Amino acid sequence: MDVKAAVAYEAGKPLTIETVQLEGPKAGEVLVEIKATGICHTDAYTLSGKDPEGLFPAILGHEGAGVVVEVGDGVKSLKPGDHVIPLYTPECRNCEYCLSFKTNLCQAIRATQGRGVMPDGTSRFSSNGKMLHHYMGTSTFANYTVLPEIAVAKIREDAPFEKVCYIGCGVTTGIGAVINTAKVEPGSRVVVFGLGGIGLNVIQGARMVGASQIVGVDINPDKRELAEKFGMTDFVNPREVEGDLVPYLVELTKGGADYSFECIGNVNVMRQALECCHKGWGMSVIIGVAAAGQEISTRPFQLVTGRVWKGTAFGGAKGRTDVPKIVDWYMEGKINIDDLITHVMPLEKINEGFDLMHQGESIRSVVTF
Amino acid sequence: MDVKAAVAYEAGKPLTIETVQLEGPKAGEVLVEIKATGICHTDAYTLSGKDPEGLFPAILGHEGAGVVVEVGDGVKSLKPGDHVIPLYTPECRNCEYCLSFKTNLCQAIRATQGRGVMPDGTSRFSSNGKMLHHYMGTSTFANYTVLPEIAVAKIREDAPFEKVCYIGCGVTTGIGAVINTAKVEPGSRVVVFGLGGIGLNVIQGARMVGASQIVGVDINPDKRELAEKFGMTDFVNPREVEGDLVPYLVELTKGGADYSFECIGNVNVMRQALECCHKGWGMSVIIGVAAAGQEISTRPFQLVTGRVWKGTAFGGAKGRTDVPKIVDWYMEGKINIDDLITHVMPLEKINEGFDLMHQGESIRSVVTF
Repeated sequence: MDVKAAVAYEAGKPLTIETVQLEGPKAGEVLVEIKATGICHTDAYTLSGKDPEGLFPAILGHEGAGVVVEVGDGVKSLKPGDHVIPLYTPECRNCEYCLSFKTNLCQAIRATQGRGVMPDGTSRFSSNGKMLHHYMGTSTFANYTVLPEIAVAKIREDAPFEKVCYIGCGVTTGIGAVINTAKVEPGSRVVVFGLGGIGLNVIQGARMVGASQIVGVDINPDKRELAEKFGMTDFVNPREVEGDLVPYLVELTKGGADYSFECIGNVNVMRQALECCHKGWGMSVIIGVAAAGQEISTRPFQLVTGRVWKGTAFGGAKGRTDVPKIVDWYMEGKINIDDLITHVMPLEKINEGFDLMHQGESIRSVVTF
Repeated sequence: MDVKAAVAYEAGKPLTIETVQLEGPKAGEVLVEIKATGICHTDAYTLSGKDPEGLFPAILGHEGAGVVVEVGDGVKSLKPGDHVIPLYTPECRNCEYCLSFKTNLCQAIRATQGRGVMPDGTSRFSSNGKMLHHYMGTSTFANYTVLPEIAVAKIREDAPFEKVCYIGCGVTTGIGAVINTAKVEPGSRVVVFGLGGIGLNVIQGARMVGASQIVGVDINPDKRELAEKFGMTDFVNPREVEGDLVPYLVELTKGGADYSFECIGNVNVMRQALECCHKGWGMSVIIGVAAAGQEISTRPFQLVTGRVWKGTAFGGAKGRTDVPKIVDWYMEGKINIDDLITHVMPLEKINEGFDLMHQGESIRSVVTF
């Protein structure tokens, strides 16, 4: 079938809006009509050419929401008409990782997903007979896409696509880091580095679970107002702190953060995030993605005296299980997504969405089809 | 009173065996007759002068066992005749740290202990009127010492002092790292770097809790036999591995260690210990003490894909609560201490005990009084 897509033909170039061809779902796959998709930094990272695993040509996009149109042989958990969110981290519930109950990093289709193809080793997308790569197993920058059944979360039908698509990545990453990875308890003191979309979701996650102090750290004072709306109790601009930031934060949190989150991808900030944690028990969670080859460092004494260094991907969430719950929380008013979606545009203007992100003008731009 | 002690007058010099003066216990303190004390790498580290917090002159020693002789005003939990193990990590059960239930790093007397004095700011030891520093709050290289009540674990009376003194540091550090810090589960795959006293105690801790694979890594093949007796299932000599050690260990453990322990104090090994952990959930625990100023490094990707980096001090054990239990385990035959105590000597020969350690000839030398 013909579908409308934004194709990444080459690193560093704008996406090309065109009609491409999509094959129907094979066994274990579903065809989904994408109704909305967010534009995320990870898409921009791959498009920039800096992602060493990036493949071209490809249909990017991993933060979508839509409706199942057709299911392939053997698909049991989904049917046409189901409202869904595609999952770049699938949940097969059968692999060693899923069954460990210690991680969300399902490995069932990791190898083929990394190669930009479906689990059978082929792509469903093509343009004039030339194969186009899938991206993160989702390829939501098209108005139809094919997904493995295990990479689809079924959600309630009254949830607005142009809002809950953001749960497909940013919202779940931030809130999940708080509740799944760090397991922040009520009364905790939390420090969040970077007040972009992920940082704001960490903040509202921390508020939701009852953190008593939520410190936001950002060099841009314009971030303050919205962060406070999401639950930030203290704002720190490192450029306005005299002396070292770490002891300043330790003092502000009366001994150090119980939990800290790095939402930037800067290895120097990752060190600060660890070292501002409370002696004895402070846990620092890395969410941001550092540039290829960069390394984190600290003195081992920081760990021997009780700090814990962790990371998280997709907020430690098991998508088919957890994403529908987060959609419920949004519908129940427990979390705020509306204020994070600053721009909505048609597919034809998707490159403007990337521009807005690079200029720091948007928190999240969403494309609707 | 006059007591017999080994005094560290100067960094890098042998200890001086002589008679020194000890004041009786003040309020909240107890006088303990030390019956046996181990000689630990930490004593040697301080004696070498490399410990930036080392103080001289001092009475070293922190791995003792003995009998309460006298108690000061207000002491309620101990009485003369009680058999005890001194604790360099106290357990006040009242400070923020003790009450957090997340750490064993009681801070009640941290400041004075670090200054080599009792909680009232003065020393009980002197030599010809000149003050001698306490060490780690314990100073067990003397046949009598004074300790704060909160730094004393009461143990059963049938436990042999010359064996259970080792529970005052090495045994608890190794076994505690397994059960308190890592919380190793039955069936786990464990990798232990460094098969000295701490490593052997990690191994027997892992065996005690039912680990299914226990890999020992050491460049000295002579360590193999005893490690196997303690429960090691696989021995790896890095000098005999072709190519990189990390992928070799990942393959040997069928995907990586569920838990790894660094028992050397080498920052490069700490990195290997982290990176040989299983994607998704592997946890690495730093036990070894690195030289001052050295740093650990890794790519943040290691953490973002689910590995956890931690450290431990005194095995995460709360001394007054946990040490008596470990003494019970020894008396019940659950753990082996006898084979770790390779040399026993009188105080007069304590410097020979340090020599044996530096030459790698002993696992643990114990001084008996």
